[in-house]
Amino acid sequence: MRNPTAAMLVIGDEILSGRTRDANMHHLAGELAEVGITLAEVRIVPDQRDVIVAAVRALSGTHDTVFTSGGIGPTHDDITADCMAEAFGQSIDVRDDARAILQAHYDKSGTDLNEARLRMARIPEHAGLIENPVSAAPGFIIENVYVMAGVPSVFKAMVASVIPSLTGGAPLLSKTLTVYRGEGDIAGPFGEIAQAYPSLSMGSYPFQRDGKYGANLVVHGQDSAILDEAMKKLEEVFA
Amino acid sequence: MRNPTAAMLVIGDEILSGRTRDANMHHLAGELAEVGITLAEVRIVPDQRDVIVAAVRALSGTHDTVFTSGGIGPTHDDITADCMAEAFGQSIDVRDDARAILQAHYDKSGTDLNEARLRMARIPEHAGLIENPVSAAPGFIIENVYVMAGVPSVFKAMVASVIPSLTGGAPLLSKTLTVYRGEGDIAGPFGEIAQAYPSLSMGSYPFQRDGKYGANLVVHGQDSAILDEAMKKLEEVFA
Repeated sequence: MRNPTAAMLVIGDEILSGRTRDANMHHLAGELAEVGITLAEVRIVPDQRDVIVAAVRALSGTHDTVFTSGGIGPTHDDITADCMAEAFGQSIDVRDDARAILQAHYDKSGTDLNEARLRMARIPEHAGLIENPVSAAPGFIIENVYVMAGVPSVFKAMVASVIPSLTGGAPLLSKTLTVYRGEGDIAGPFGEIAQAYPSLSMGSYPFQRDGKYGANLVVHGQDSAILDEAMKKLEEVFA
Repeated sequence: MRNPTAAMLVIGDEILSGRTRDANMHHLAGELAEVGITLAEVRIVPDQRDVIVAAVRALSGTHDTVFTSGGIGPTHDDITADCMAEAFGQSIDVRDDARAILQAHYDKSGTDLNEARLRMARIPEHAGLIENPVSAAPGFIIENVYVMAGVPSVFKAMVASVIPSLTGGAPLLSKTLTVYRGEGDIAGPFGEIAQAYPSLSMGSYPFQRDGKYGANLVVHGQDSAILDEAMKKLEEVFA
């Protein structure tokens, strides 16, 4: 039984320019694995309308669910909401429900809901809102796409609020055996064991540490008994 | 004048499963920025033949250069070389030049060049080799695609060996102004300044730090005089 698949679309120039390391991808990958959704692809694209529109259409058509991060703030480079509306042929404008959320939030601190902040209430007409307990401005769900903020604390909060509504399969379990030998010595027997367990996926991730070669042999699967059996086999062979 | 664009294809289940944080993307992004090549897209895909083939074809067709990382080791899950051959309609087999490099390397340490290690000499017929000063097994260049290792130390070494052969544009300069105000207050004047400097790209990256809101205003461009002028303007407005 195939687990549902998800894709992530990271929107913004920050990672592509080398200035920032991604944090959201790593967080989402871990959360999805726990609920049995396979993160099957990630794309990172710049703040360019045509590129964003094409990417979200492609990912939305090939995966059960898509998660986006970035580009839903109040500044001129935040164009994600407009791109999503275009991608799915919906109109977009300041929506009363989103405006009310922002108004209540800014009233509390006596902050003016100015034109820039009001941009964050621009939501495609048929989208559902995603709660933002950190800074109020909502994300939204359009078709099978969850549109979320790029700021890690807000992204995390939004992921937490949508995860319970997702239907996953069996959680993906994973175990690792670290072997201090060259991959060239590991490869033969490791490949044979991988073939003997077609329901598991096995990968070798080599490293060089303090001048010694080694590899992390990572086994993924959904049946913990089979996973344990395969790990025992690996430990016997590589002990 | 548009700078050449590059894409990166990260191959392997490690990042998608949430086990590992990417390091190679961050490194490549920085190196490309320095030589004036715009990293315009990144895709992360699993160890699946059809997905890898489709992705490299798509990226190769839309960007001047593509860099891949991962999947060129000796284990059964290393399928990148075969996928590249398929993507570009070339045959693939153990090649004498690559075998000679491996033989010389393993002879030095008295290590057997076994069947598994010999897989690393499988190179598409018309590909050029990329030197690997760390662990010998070469990467390769096929069409406009640079196929490199996933192990960060080897990836870095391969990037260093190919960067001098690439023709970039003017290096992308970047300056940042950190402003401790909410993005909603920044957005209006920041957008006006961005409009006044169409040759620069300006982005706002909000953060929440010790309970205070702020944003890094990042300005990218190729002309340092214009960049300095815009930064001065930003400093005046947000001082």
